[in-house]
Amino acid sequence: MSKKKQEFVAHITSKEEDFSRWYTDIILKTDLVDYSPVRGSMVIKPYGYEIWENIQKELDERFKATGHKNAYFPLFIPESLLQKEADHVEGFAPEVAWVTHGGDEKLAERLVVRPTSETIICAMYSKWIQSYRDLPLLYNQWCNVVRWEKTTRPFLRTLEFLWQEGHTAHATEEEAQEETMKMLGVYREFSENVLAIPMVAGKKTEKEKFAGAVSTYTIEALMQDGQALQAGTSHNLGQHFAKVFDIQFLDRDGEQKYVWQSSWGVTTRLIGAIIMVHGDERGLVLPPKVAPVQVVMVPIAFHKEGVLAKAEALFEELKAAGLRVELDDRDTQSTGWKFNEWEMKGVPVRLEIGPKDIEKNQVVLVRRDTHEKIFVPMENLADTIKSMLDDVHKGLYEKALAMREAHTHEAHNMDEFKDALENKKGFIKAMWCGRDTCEDSIKEETGATARCMPFEQEYLDEHCVCCGEKAEHLVFFARAY
Amino acid sequence: MSKKKQEFVAHITSKEEDFSRWYTDIILKTDLVDYSPVRGSMVIKPYGYEIWENIQKELDERFKATGHKNAYFPLFIPESLLQKEADHVEGFAPEVAWVTHGGDEKLAERLVVRPTSETIICAMYSKWIQSYRDLPLLYNQWCNVVRWEKTTRPFLRTLEFLWQEGHTAHATEEEAQEETMKMLGVYREFSENVLAIPMVAGKKTEKEKFAGAVSTYTIEALMQDGQALQAGTSHNLGQHFAKVFDIQFLDRDGEQKYVWQSSWGVTTRLIGAIIMVHGDERGLVLPPKVAPVQVVMVPIAFHKEGVLAKAEALFEELKAAGLRVELDDRDTQSTGWKFNEWEMKGVPVRLEIGPKDIEKNQVVLVRRDTHEKIFVPMENLADTIKSMLDDVHKGLYEKALAMREAHTHEAHNMDEFKDALENKKGFIKAMWCGRDTCEDSIKEETGATARCMPFEQEYLDEHCVCCGEKAEHLVFFARAY
Repeated sequence: MSKKKQEFVAHITSKEEDFSRWYTDIILKTDLVDYSPVRGSMVIKPYGYEIWENIQKELDERFKATGHKNAYFPLFIPESLLQKEADHVEGFAPEVAWVTHGGDEKLAERLVVRPTSETIICAMYSKWIQSYRDLPLLYNQWCNVVRWEKTTRPFLRTLEFLWQEGHTAHATEEEAQEETMKMLGVYREFSENVLAIPMVAGKKTEKEKFAGAVSTYTIEALMQDGQALQAGTSHNLGQHFAKVFDIQFLDRDGEQKYVWQSSWGVTTRLIGAIIMVHGDERGLVLPPKVAPVQVVMVPIAFHKEGVLAKAEALFEELKAAGLRVELDDRDTQSTGWKFNEWEMKGVPVRLEIGPKDIEKNQVVLVRRDTHEKIFVPMENLADTIKSMLDDVHKGLYEKALAMREAHTHEAHNMDEFKDALENKKGFIKAMWCGRDTCEDSIKEETGATARCMPFEQEYLDEHCVCCGEKAEHLVFFARAY
Repeated sequence: MSKKKQEFVAHITSKEEDFSRWYTDIILKTDLVDYSPVRGSMVIKPYGYEIWENIQKELDERFKATGHKNAYFPLFIPESLLQKEADHVEGFAPEVAWVTHGGDEKLAERLVVRPTSETIICAMYSKWIQSYRDLPLLYNQWCNVVRWEKTTRPFLRTLEFLWQEGHTAHATEEEAQEETMKMLGVYREFSENVLAIPMVAGKKTEKEKFAGAVSTYTIEALMQDGQALQAGTSHNLGQHFAKVFDIQFLDRDGEQKYVWQSSWGVTTRLIGAIIMVHGDERGLVLPPKVAPVQVVMVPIAFHKEGVLAKAEALFEELKAAGLRVELDDRDTQSTGWKFNEWEMKGVPVRLEIGPKDIEKNQVVLVRRDTHEKIFVPMENLADTIKSMLDDVHKGLYEKALAMREAHTHEAHNMDEFKDALENKKGFIKAMWCGRDTCEDSIKEETGATARCMPFEQEYLDEHCVCCGEKAEHLVFFARAY
């Protein structure tokens, strides 16, 4: 490593040394976000927003392919609507922003800035749903939401964030459950095939479920510091909202019935997960399918005749082949500086092209994840790069999976639990009796929460890791973001 | 017209009889929007939202092609930021929603729900812009905004609406002006080539310009009831915001200078314009490029062998060719009912296919705008339909242009002005001295406002239509939404 490179990379705190500062350094220095003058609200800069646009595009295609349509519901929710579902209001009221005045006028009824939209959407569904013919109703919206969080961190927990929220209504309990599971499946498939992040999928405990749901299902990812991150949730709402919002339909059998509902969402925090799962000491490492720039072309000695022209011709060829490509022809920066900058920005593949390469009708490709450097012919270059991007994706996924497996530990008693959590970090797999009291005392003693009861249940022991009484479920515990 | 058809169409009020009720009937009955429990806030239903998605896609491509990037800025703006630019706060403070509490806590400083984002964006630009190398800065955001309007109407004027706002910073006054005009040009080209709506482009008067701008440029469309609608604006902000937010850069010449800025936006009200420019007595007439469904296939006698199979094969063929196509194979509705419903929903082309058509290897195509019915071979059907969609687009544009021309009247004195406005409706072209007093008294006497001073100036008279003194500008006046 040259002196220059060392100096440059040194701007990012080592993640072994201070993971939290490493994270902050990356998000600021790679221009993903910036802090704003509004407490807890971030500005998403173009490089970060483009990742979100790619996430949106991939998810939106999947939502539409599974029969969902997008709609848009109001930002403001009258206080009386929020209060209809008792658990829901209890969960959300402490963390909402209140609009009390419009212009100079004090409002007769306060408005909540939506923290989630079940209430306003159910108020509409009650109007729209009359007959079994109106079901299933499968809507989604892309929007901003606000939660008055005390401690915030860009992407992970912010006062305002961007998300999508799906809201569906069905004629039967079975269909609602099927939808709930189907959309969790979509999230999991998307996370693995687009973000290259392996997920543990399972059910939340009663304590951890969504305020107002019958049950909540989740996908949980492990970050490199050993903390878990809830990446997406899907809720079976049962008839809780249908009953308080009076969403009834005339069924085929001539009877009036309440609908069964689901809701599900993912947020801009997925970008935080990408950073903390794949990032390394040099900065961001972006999964190819959401990277704003998939290939950066750095021409070498590009003042020499023919280099820039050739680079430009290849640039057009790659762009036409559907690759997100950037040609860095700045003459204000050295080649080494450019290499470092694009590595820090996590671009999956770097393409170098210089006079000697042109002579040999070849280019140099460098993988961001493994730093592997290969010489490839110019012929069929787009295909070669696409195949390398697939390899990067696979490599990232496998590395993340290996990392998670190395940091998933069984605990058969509380000593093992604490030892694993303190000294080995990561997920703790342990048996649980199903009682709140044990869940509470584990949280109190260790700081770890029940992330989920995974669908793939194992039976490690017959006894609960905490109280020693009969175990009911295998649980993944972890400290979490 | 069959009895059934008459009954069905009768649900929509005649636009000659009551334009306003016709508009409301259309937006509700075609499922574009619904009213919500929040005063002045609409729910955009999937059929309306899909039009917005198509508008977004077309505009976003144009923004990116002209070098702009998307970002996302906070929804909330601290009161002190809003107050920095004097004209801006005067213009917006009376119509903002105020957040005063977060959870149980009363905020030390009130927050405004963004009515527009110049202030929060300028606060960030001041941090991001240091050198001429950082310029031009060309950002856009797609988001929701809130204005506390007293009288609201879906799409046209709502408490909350969706829009895009471009915000740019430049090194010179000339570049800022060039950008301002370029983006107005993008809006105009988009309106004409995508929405099929002809626009009058020009400059706003001092009274009508954006709060905080040096000058505002606008595109104005004429609705079928003779009222104008401001469809998009582009503002040259000069250095007004740069000075109060201290956005300075070190120029090539070594001097610190304030940047020059522009901002520009269009909103969901464009959907209102589409309805009021193209709609007819049967309902919506959608321009093909934004229609959620471009071709609806209605199989005739589809219980007969082979009909549905053939229709499905054609459906797949048309879909694969990139057309937005829907196959209406409901057996719960009659063919006539389907024809009426899809006409009401404004689908540009209807395709009928029955046993006789299949025998003859043909289908029937019916244009929504002219009701022209033609028999065409099944070979190259996608191309035939694409060409028909182009014809529909052209037809809509020409009809709208003819309508506007028939409703654009010259007035040489106030009697003519009033007579034209009352009896002929539409745009009134008249000469104006350039003084507020005349603009005010025209508004007071007639209800018409100065829509713009068109770029294509003519000289109708030497005297002002109002005071008779020396005329400075040709102005398009109209009553407006």
